[in-house]
Amino acid sequence: MQRYKCVISYDGSGFSGYQVQPNKRTVQSELEAMLAKMHKGASIKVVGSGRTDAGVHAKGQVIHFDSPLAISEQKWEIALNSMLPEDISVLSVLKVDASFHARFAAVRKEYRYILHLSPKRDPFQRKFAYQYPYGLNVDSMREASKFFLGTHDFTSFCSAKTEVEDKIRIIEAIDFINGGDLLTLRFVGNGFLYNMVRILVGTLLAVGSGDLLPEDIPVILEKKDRRFAGKTAPAQGLYLWEVFY
Amino acid sequence: MQRYKCVISYDGSGFSGYQVQPNKRTVQSELEAMLAKMHKGASIKVVGSGRTDAGVHAKGQVIHFDSPLAISEQKWEIALNSMLPEDISVLSVLKVDASFHARFAAVRKEYRYILHLSPKRDPFQRKFAYQYPYGLNVDSMREASKFFLGTHDFTSFCSAKTEVEDKIRIIEAIDFINGGDLLTLRFVGNGFLYNMVRILVGTLLAVGSGDLLPEDIPVILEKKDRRFAGKTAPAQGLYLWEVFY
Repeated sequence: MQRYKCVISYDGSGFSGYQVQPNKRTVQSELEAMLAKMHKGASIKVVGSGRTDAGVHAKGQVIHFDSPLAISEQKWEIALNSMLPEDISVLSVLKVDASFHARFAAVRKEYRYILHLSPKRDPFQRKFAYQYPYGLNVDSMREASKFFLGTHDFTSFCSAKTEVEDKIRIIEAIDFINGGDLLTLRFVGNGFLYNMVRILVGTLLAVGSGDLLPEDIPVILEKKDRRFAGKTAPAQGLYLWEVFY
Repeated sequence: MQRYKCVISYDGSGFSGYQVQPNKRTVQSELEAMLAKMHKGASIKVVGSGRTDAGVHAKGQVIHFDSPLAISEQKWEIALNSMLPEDISVLSVLKVDASFHARFAAVRKEYRYILHLSPKRDPFQRKFAYQYPYGLNVDSMREASKFFLGTHDFTSFCSAKTEVEDKIRIIEAIDFINGGDLLTLRFVGNGFLYNMVRILVGTLLAVGSGDLLPEDIPVILEKKDRRFAGKTAPAQGLYLWEVFY
């Protein structure tokens, strides 16, 4: 058996998320169906760095799997891409030690959230950015974002359905990248809870639109109650950008 | 009756082209269905600047229609966008004289064709650019493109199915725009025949890959025979960019 680490990219708009669900088209089930074909029907388990929700994209999701097939990394990449549907792409394949684990070995993740600020609806952005044409005070958003940096209990900033106990995470960076009528919010941290990036974005939008003040952020963190934070921003603006090991 | 000129944009990937066809989802039929709803079922004919094929996109297609409704330009824009599906957007609405005609009054058109040059498949580009990872000599393509400029009989560069008699057109500009792993070919001319831009691109790709020489272009123009030009490049890279009046 050889363990393989793959970096994959997918357009999330055609998937019910990353993780296998009965009777749904998911990234993991497409990957496992394809590997089963390559292994004469034998079931090969694919482990991802984490889930992404329905409609959420990935520029650099990481997965691993074990295979008895003796194929070079380059040939794996060609074979996987030729068998996968067009909305998933394998960007690289690397032979790794059996101690590597896509989920448990991840030390840092980068997510990006793309806002489309134009008042004009853009058919080419509708699945790839969240249109927010109402005007934003980006300076306030930047000020607010600083309160998220460092180590915090993010109970207020994750779905009430979150199952993990420990809700303390470290956010290392939040950057704002301007590009024409697109505004990209970049989040780097040691881990993100369920819906956390989308709730951080929804809360920053509440600040940018004047519904919240930057100084409200430490208060909301302190509350440890999801109801005090902003809305969960829609899935189509979110990208799992890179996973670090 | 008031005539309205609208600039519209659409993601062509969900349409069987611009023009109405029985039992197919087309841009024109979506527009006419929506206008019929606004006019209590009365049929309103929509006239476009020209057709686009299945999968071809538009950044600035122009249409006109006549309506008895007394609505301001701004309200038309809001109403149309609220009723149209998400893959069509109305960018502007202008009251025009009844002598305006979206097709016959057009004096110039700009098309763009986007090539994705990376060897890595990109799920986000698959419907919006043509992946061509085989290497291209762009200098040769540029040299070849000069032979297309000016007034020529483009019989060799349109579909054999083209119905119009007069195949003489003027190409005013062909530009190459580099942007990372995207190469955009920009075509401006007084009119383009059926499949003409896609055949021009396919022929320039044949030059860029070494299958044809720049000097072959005048010979192919002279032949007036579709079989001597390059392949028809795929629809998904093509954008009707702007129509000038």
